[in-house]
Amino acid sequence: MSYKIITISREFGSGGRTIGKALAEKLGIPCYDSEIIDKVAEKSGFAKEYIADKGEYISTSHLSGLFRSNYYYKSSNEDIIRDIQTKIILDIADKESCVIVGRCADYILHDRDDVLKVFICSDKESRAKRIVDVYGEKEDSPEKRIKDKDKKREAYYKFYTDMSWGEAKNYDISLNSGTVGIDNCVDILYNIFRNSK
Amino acid sequence: MSYKIITISREFGSGGRTIGKALAEKLGIPCYDSEIIDKVAEKSGFAKEYIADKGEYISTSHLSGLFRSNYYYKSSNEDIIRDIQTKIILDIADKESCVIVGRCADYILHDRDDVLKVFICSDKESRAKRIVDVYGEKEDSPEKRIKDKDKKREAYYKFYTDMSWGEAKNYDISLNSGTVGIDNCVDILYNIFRNSK
Repeated sequence: MSYKIITISREFGSGGRTIGKALAEKLGIPCYDSEIIDKVAEKSGFAKEYIADKGEYISTSHLSGLFRSNYYYKSSNEDIIRDIQTKIILDIADKESCVIVGRCADYILHDRDDVLKVFICSDKESRAKRIVDVYGEKEDSPEKRIKDKDKKREAYYKFYTDMSWGEAKNYDISLNSGTVGIDNCVDILYNIFRNSK
Repeated sequence: MSYKIITISREFGSGGRTIGKALAEKLGIPCYDSEIIDKVAEKSGFAKEYIADKGEYISTSHLSGLFRSNYYYKSSNEDIIRDIQTKIILDIADKESCVIVGRCADYILHDRDDVLKVFICSDKESRAKRIVDVYGEKEDSPEKRIKDKDKKREAYYKFYTDMSWGEAKNYDISLNSGTVGIDNCVDILYNIFRNSK
C-alpha cells in the first residue's frame, strides 16, 4: 500500500489540526484545512465563518426540517456547501499528495485505496485544557463547548456518511493524542506514510 | 510514556491474536491469550471451552435473567469467571512486561499508565475470509459467525465495562488490519513500544 493522501478526522480539542500541520510540514507536502474554507467561499459566495460552521456541523433547524411530515425537500445551504466542498476535496486529492483535515474527507475519498484515514481523539480533560490554551476562555465552559461541537459534528458525519463518528473501523488508524502525545502521533503517522513508499 | 504492557482488543477475524503473538515474539516478551484460560481453568474447575466462551462473550440467558423483575441476583458462572480472570490479569501485569490478548484486559488495567491499549479491527470481507482460512468452514456462514461473535463480545464489554466496544477513544491506538496489513500492524506497534523506552 503506497499512500498519497492523509485525511485527519478529529475530535474538537484533540490537537488533530496541529498534528495534521506538523505532519504535512515533516513530509514536505501541503496541509489543507482553512484553505478548503477559502476555496468554498470563493466558489459559493458564502462568508468564511458561515462555511466553517455549516461545512462540518449540522444545525438542529436543518435536521428538524427534514423530519417534519409536511417538509418539501430543497437544497439547503448545508447541502450547497457540502457539494462544493466535495468537489474541491476530490480535485485536491487528484492533483497532489497532501494532508486534509476534517470536512468528511475520509468519506469523500473512500473509494481510493491510496488514502490513509486517520482519526485523532483524546480524553475530555486534555481536550478542555487544550481548547482554553488554543482558543481562549469563552462565556461557555470548555466542557459545554466540547459537548456542543461533538454533538453537531457527530450529527453531520452521520447525516452525510451514514456511519458512526469515532468508530475505529471507519479509519485505518486512530490515535489518542491525550495518552500518546501530539509529537508521538506525528512521528507514528510520518513513519506509516514513509514506510508505505 | 514508557509502556510495560500491551493489551490487544480485537474483532473476531481481524487477526488481533496473530498480531499479538508476532509482536510479543518480536519484543521478546510473553503473550497471554489461551494461557489465561488455562489459569482460570486451574483455579475455577470449569472446562477450558466453557471459560473461552463465558470469559469474553455474554449469553442471552444471563442478560435476560438480569432484566427479569422477579430475578434474585446471585453470582453467575460468568461473574465467577470474570472475577478470577481479573485477578489473574492484574497479577500477570504486576509481574512482567507482556502482551495480553482480549478478555477486557484494557479495562481491567485502565488505572495503570504503562499500558498501551490497542484495538484491532477490519472490514467484514477480510474477516470472513480470515476465519475460514484460520478456523475452517462451519455449518453457519462466516458472515453469521462474525455477527454472532460481535454481538456477544459487544454485550460482554458493555456489561462489564460500561463503555462501547470499538470506539476509538477507549484505546491509545486502533488499527484496521484489513487496510494496514497484519505485518505492518506488528511493525507499527513494535516501534511505538520500543520508542517509548
